[in-house]
Amino acid sequence: MYLKENNLIVEKGYKNNFNVRGTAFLVGNLFIGVRGFLEEETKIQNASINLPLLYDKDDSNPNFWTTSVNICNPLYTVLRVNDNILSPEKIKPFDNKFILDTRNNCFIRETTYKCADISTFINSQRFVSADIPNNIYSRYEFSVDKTCLVNIKAGIDLDLYELEGHHLKDNYDVKIESRNTIIYTFYTKSKNVSVTVRVSLFSNNLDINTASMVLDNNKHVISLNINALPNIKYTLDKKITIYYKDMDGFGLDVLDKEDIIDNNTFSLAITNHHKIWHPKFDFSNVTIDGDKKADISLRHAIFNLLSLEPSVRNNSSVPARGISGQTYKGAIFWDTEMFMFPFYLLNDIKSCYQIINYRIKGLDEAIKKAASYGYQGAFYAWESIENGIDACSDYNVVDVFTSRPVRTYFKDKQIHINGAIVYAIYSLYNFTKDEQVLRDSYELIKQCALFYVSYAKTNLMNKTVDILDVLGPDEYHERVNNNIYTNYIIKHTLFVYLRASKILGITSVALEVKATYIYNYIYIPTPNAHNVIPQFDGYFNLKDISLKELLSQKLDKNEYLGGHGLAGDTKIIKQADTITALYLFNNLFSKEVLEANFNYYEPKTEHGSTLSSSMYSLIASKIGKSDYAYEHFIKSASVDLEGKTKQYAGKVYIGGSHIASFGGAYMSAIYGFTSLDLSSETPKVSIALPSKIKSISYNIKYNNKKYNIYVNHTNSKIKEF
Amino acid sequence: MYLKENNLIVEKGYKNNFNVRGTAFLVGNLFIGVRGFLEEETKIQNASINLPLLYDKDDSNPNFWTTSVNICNPLYTVLRVNDNILSPEKIKPFDNKFILDTRNNCFIRETTYKCADISTFINSQRFVSADIPNNIYSRYEFSVDKTCLVNIKAGIDLDLYELEGHHLKDNYDVKIESRNTIIYTFYTKSKNVSVTVRVSLFSNNLDINTASMVLDNNKHVISLNINALPNIKYTLDKKITIYYKDMDGFGLDVLDKEDIIDNNTFSLAITNHHKIWHPKFDFSNVTIDGDKKADISLRHAIFNLLSLEPSVRNNSSVPARGISGQTYKGAIFWDTEMFMFPFYLLNDIKSCYQIINYRIKGLDEAIKKAASYGYQGAFYAWESIENGIDACSDYNVVDVFTSRPVRTYFKDKQIHINGAIVYAIYSLYNFTKDEQVLRDSYELIKQCALFYVSYAKTNLMNKTVDILDVLGPDEYHERVNNNIYTNYIIKHTLFVYLRASKILGITSVALEVKATYIYNYIYIPTPNAHNVIPQFDGYFNLKDISLKELLSQKLDKNEYLGGHGLAGDTKIIKQADTITALYLFNNLFSKEVLEANFNYYEPKTEHGSTLSSSMYSLIASKIGKSDYAYEHFIKSASVDLEGKTKQYAGKVYIGGSHIASFGGAYMSAIYGFTSLDLSSETPKVSIALPSKIKSISYNIKYNNKKYNIYVNHTNSKIKEF
Repeated sequence: MYLKENNLIVEKGYKNNFNVRGTAFLVGNLFIGVRGFLEEETKIQNASINLPLLYDKDDSNPNFWTTSVNICNPLYTVLRVNDNILSPEKIKPFDNKFILDTRNNCFIRETTYKCADISTFINSQRFVSADIPNNIYSRYEFSVDKTCLVNIKAGIDLDLYELEGHHLKDNYDVKIESRNTIIYTFYTKSKNVSVTVRVSLFSNNLDINTASMVLDNNKHVISLNINALPNIKYTLDKKITIYYKDMDGFGLDVLDKEDIIDNNTFSLAITNHHKIWHPKFDFSNVTIDGDKKADISLRHAIFNLLSLEPSVRNNSSVPARGISGQTYKGAIFWDTEMFMFPFYLLNDIKSCYQIINYRIKGLDEAIKKAASYGYQGAFYAWESIENGIDACSDYNVVDVFTSRPVRTYFKDKQIHINGAIVYAIYSLYNFTKDEQVLRDSYELIKQCALFYVSYAKTNLMNKTVDILDVLGPDEYHERVNNNIYTNYIIKHTLFVYLRASKILGITSVALEVKATYIYNYIYIPTPNAHNVIPQFDGYFNLKDISLKELLSQKLDKNEYLGGHGLAGDTKIIKQADTITALYLFNNLFSKEVLEANFNYYEPKTEHGSTLSSSMYSLIASKIGKSDYAYEHFIKSASVDLEGKTKQYAGKVYIGGSHIASFGGAYMSAIYGFTSLDLSSETPKVSIALPSKIKSISYNIKYNNKKYNIYVNHTNSKIKEF
Repeated sequence: MYLKENNLIVEKGYKNNFNVRGTAFLVGNLFIGVRGFLEEETKIQNASINLPLLYDKDDSNPNFWTTSVNICNPLYTVLRVNDNILSPEKIKPFDNKFILDTRNNCFIRETTYKCADISTFINSQRFVSADIPNNIYSRYEFSVDKTCLVNIKAGIDLDLYELEGHHLKDNYDVKIESRNTIIYTFYTKSKNVSVTVRVSLFSNNLDINTASMVLDNNKHVISLNINALPNIKYTLDKKITIYYKDMDGFGLDVLDKEDIIDNNTFSLAITNHHKIWHPKFDFSNVTIDGDKKADISLRHAIFNLLSLEPSVRNNSSVPARGISGQTYKGAIFWDTEMFMFPFYLLNDIKSCYQIINYRIKGLDEAIKKAASYGYQGAFYAWESIENGIDACSDYNVVDVFTSRPVRTYFKDKQIHINGAIVYAIYSLYNFTKDEQVLRDSYELIKQCALFYVSYAKTNLMNKTVDILDVLGPDEYHERVNNNIYTNYIIKHTLFVYLRASKILGITSVALEVKATYIYNYIYIPTPNAHNVIPQFDGYFNLKDISLKELLSQKLDKNEYLGGHGLAGDTKIIKQADTITALYLFNNLFSKEVLEANFNYYEPKTEHGSTLSSSMYSLIASKIGKSDYAYEHFIKSASVDLEGKTKQYAGKVYIGGSHIASFGGAYMSAIYGFTSLDLSSETPKVSIALPSKIKSISYNIKYNNKKYNIYVNHTNSKIKEF
């Protein structure tokens, strides 16, 4: 369990929950992701450093996927005390604390090892600089309670935790500038991007110059033996710079050309780091009173969203698994536009522009993808990597029974991705009234609309337009017809296309006629006698089975339930689908319809995706079920602190950060509990607070003004500042 | 191996190949199927008697399928010699022969048991009467080589071999008219159809009246002890009548109301049986000179096709697995129209009318099926049972790894079934020029066309009509778009509809306009640069893998390769698909195209369906590869004698007769090796004989005339008689 002490997120003790803990305690930005690990941990504990948005592939096996690149760990440091190596594989820490300081944006560890009769205390602090975003700074300190012989090994762990083969070539360059500066340059395997990692060490009470340099067991370290005196704090600082440029010039400049490190480096770096981070975090953090868990969880969510601001990097967007590693290939999904975008819209509008720029830059790839399937227009990547290339495989799951790849349809049938991008663009335009948004993305919007026009099917019997053979957000039901979410988002895309054409005064008669026809005749099922809308054609004919019963039929805990799996022919759905459509277009539906569908679909939803709960929370707030709303909110907000999400889809590891869930939690709080309404000149709220929460307070930027909003069970206050 | 001795098909020895042998040696007709078993065998050896076209379902388990009904075995007879029971479970026969006498249409067994120092010889002969088709006659004889005590138990084995639960109620009526006549009346489980089995016994040298009657272990028998003298042939005759009527009056009258049995009964029955059978068989049998295996195999094929003539029974058609039992549910597939119909067309035109009447009678069900999927018109059953009801399940295969039902798409996506029916109708019309054929089936044709019109999809970008989301004959590739076979057969159906409307002077403008549009614009892919036509959209993008390599990846010998199985995403196909289209519409293609597609698809074809080889054989004959044609012909013709076909699809038993393969073998010989051409007033042939075959001779009925056709490697003769 994670405690909150003085606004710190703390895990006490040492458990083998490497994947969950490493994710919960990670720090970084869209250049570097540093997982929450002890300096003495290695790839065994998934101690890894991820370079988001730098992708490569190990071509030695065609089944390997393209993923983001993991790089060597320059934080590696390990002690040997009287010949006892202090690492969890050898000795379990006697006492341990992992600490995430969200306000100061740093990771702290405090560990006591007891070995023979010596007690060693290690603490460290690290951060990825908000000021120089490709620099990592760390201060490592230790003390012993008795005089003893201590060996310190500090340097670089070259052994990488990697999910899909090796992303770096076997040959690399090493430059040893001095005892305290080592520079490694690696080359990515298929694209030959050079990635340089420079580590500089400094200590005010350890004589690094007397250390020997050792390369052993893939650890390149300085090795220093000292006679440690009791109760003296020995300190070792590291300043790490990582830089690369890929072939398109997309990457990271050497922002900090100086490799000087001295006694002031660390404290100065902290000061500069805080100067940037404090105002951001203080503005964006949401304070929840009366419910510690809600407050700490949402704080963690916002910390992650803010860490990943695309505004720091050109044409960048946020991967679904953030910067936590290589799961989901480090790729960007609809998650960004649908679940994270609303956070950035209220907090950091520049990030919204970057997210859209990233997609505009990817238009060519999307047009190629559409053409590869025989369609016109643009079909955006399901798992988008550099330049908008689709990293998604046709086989994104491995069968647990046969260990064979399973043909999935995420890549080729999840056509709703286009609609999410256009939805985000239109919401940015609506929020800013900035016509340049539409102008810059007009070609994107048009190509997305054209794709839908070329995809839509008509027939000779009536005027109805069908959208056939798709995968909706509920990925358990493959290749369905007229998925409600997909059809609504297509209709909306056509609406935006026609509206943008009008606003910008651009005419393209042939396409407009077709788009108008489809807009008018696209099949939208009406609610049945019980006000329930079928998720797709034939949904009501599927097998009725309770979620509990379905799960009890599992023969393997990791078996994939979708497609030909257990859920495929039942009414059990993976995640909010109809409910997502109802939330996005809730002004089209009566409260009765929202309520009926919530009641119908909620028990049928596995919430097997972390995108699910927030949508249920938002609808629950709208229909007066604020305590239900709370349950779904807290699930979304605490997703990575609790770490109870699926770690495997079939045999594929899918753990890591859940940034969209964080975005969803933020939306649930702001648009749910306080029903933030931005349809007028100034923000409005209404009260839908769950009983557990006494009050909520947050800031937003709206119409170039800053507002503080406070809501409790009886009052609300909106204050411009 | 099956030998041919004096035109008899013989298997020597006794093996545990119950399923294969029982099928190869079965006799019967569309009322009764009697498998090839020893009288002392039981359900352990799949000794069973099938009532084709009488369907029922065990409702105690919703997962049980509707299948044809198996009935008690009234041929059961077993000897005990000096306390040794002579049955294969106890004593392996010392010597044994199973014999199928195709010309005389009877089954013979000759067995020697050696036990202690006594040798017992048993022989029997049985047939289902061609004269009284619900009567079975059998003569059972035995002799011993030393005086000994013999107990004879003869009567009814009530223990049934059944695939899907129990089809008969637990309660039944028994009437014992005398020591030599027992009458059992059973009731089918869900529809309560009463089925009566009457067994009369006669012996000229065993005193049946002194026998006791015993009901033990589900065997209702007379039990008779005799002191058997050496080298005396003891004889026991049985006359069995089976009759029933189902709720629709569809069934079997008591044709033979007399239950008298005497010394003359058996021989008289044989005489009457031959009187009907001999001329039929002598007319239809094809004589192949120079290749014993080809001759015997094709004889076996024709024997089966002729035994199953639908002309004996109103509104009947031929199940895919004939009368061999409950596999494939005893249902009627497209096999009949596409693979058997051509045989009946040349040999027994009345059967063709019955086959079509059966479908006309099923029109209402087909209209209901179409409506259930939201379409107009008629969508015929994939596995058609009484009244055209679809017995096909959405889960027609059981996964070998999880034992779970697998969602298959035979029922809902194999829309080409309509086209096969219309193709047969039009070929009957073409053959007879009988407009009444079109008149009687006009509504059927129209509804089939209407279904296709309502199924076809158009779009706003061009005039093309797509047929989406279907399963072609190659069932391994599910839910494909624009399957070449399906699109061609749809185009043909629309052609027949438009043509029949014109011939009959019936006008329905709205539908005709639509049908004409689809006829003109339905997507028909053109051959690629190598003259190869893709089997469906995207086929050429599938994985290239050799059949051998694919099969080597199997983890379980019975695993299903289709859908999500190993073949689903590869170019490996189950059976002729493009090749079937090319055969049916071969006048549309150049020899180069036929050849290119044969060469391309043949190595990719598993021939996992016995409908496959004959199509390859026919095309091979057309492109001058007569020895290839032979290989595929012999595979089709000898299918049930060799018994090497798949016995399981996943965990579902699918063994039994392969009547369509027999029909295909016949077509391969007639339309392939002798290239029979019926486009003129009188038949024409040309020579495409494989090298192994010296000559072929056969008869056909054409334009109300009978012709004998003889073809060798240099000459051909066509003689009217």
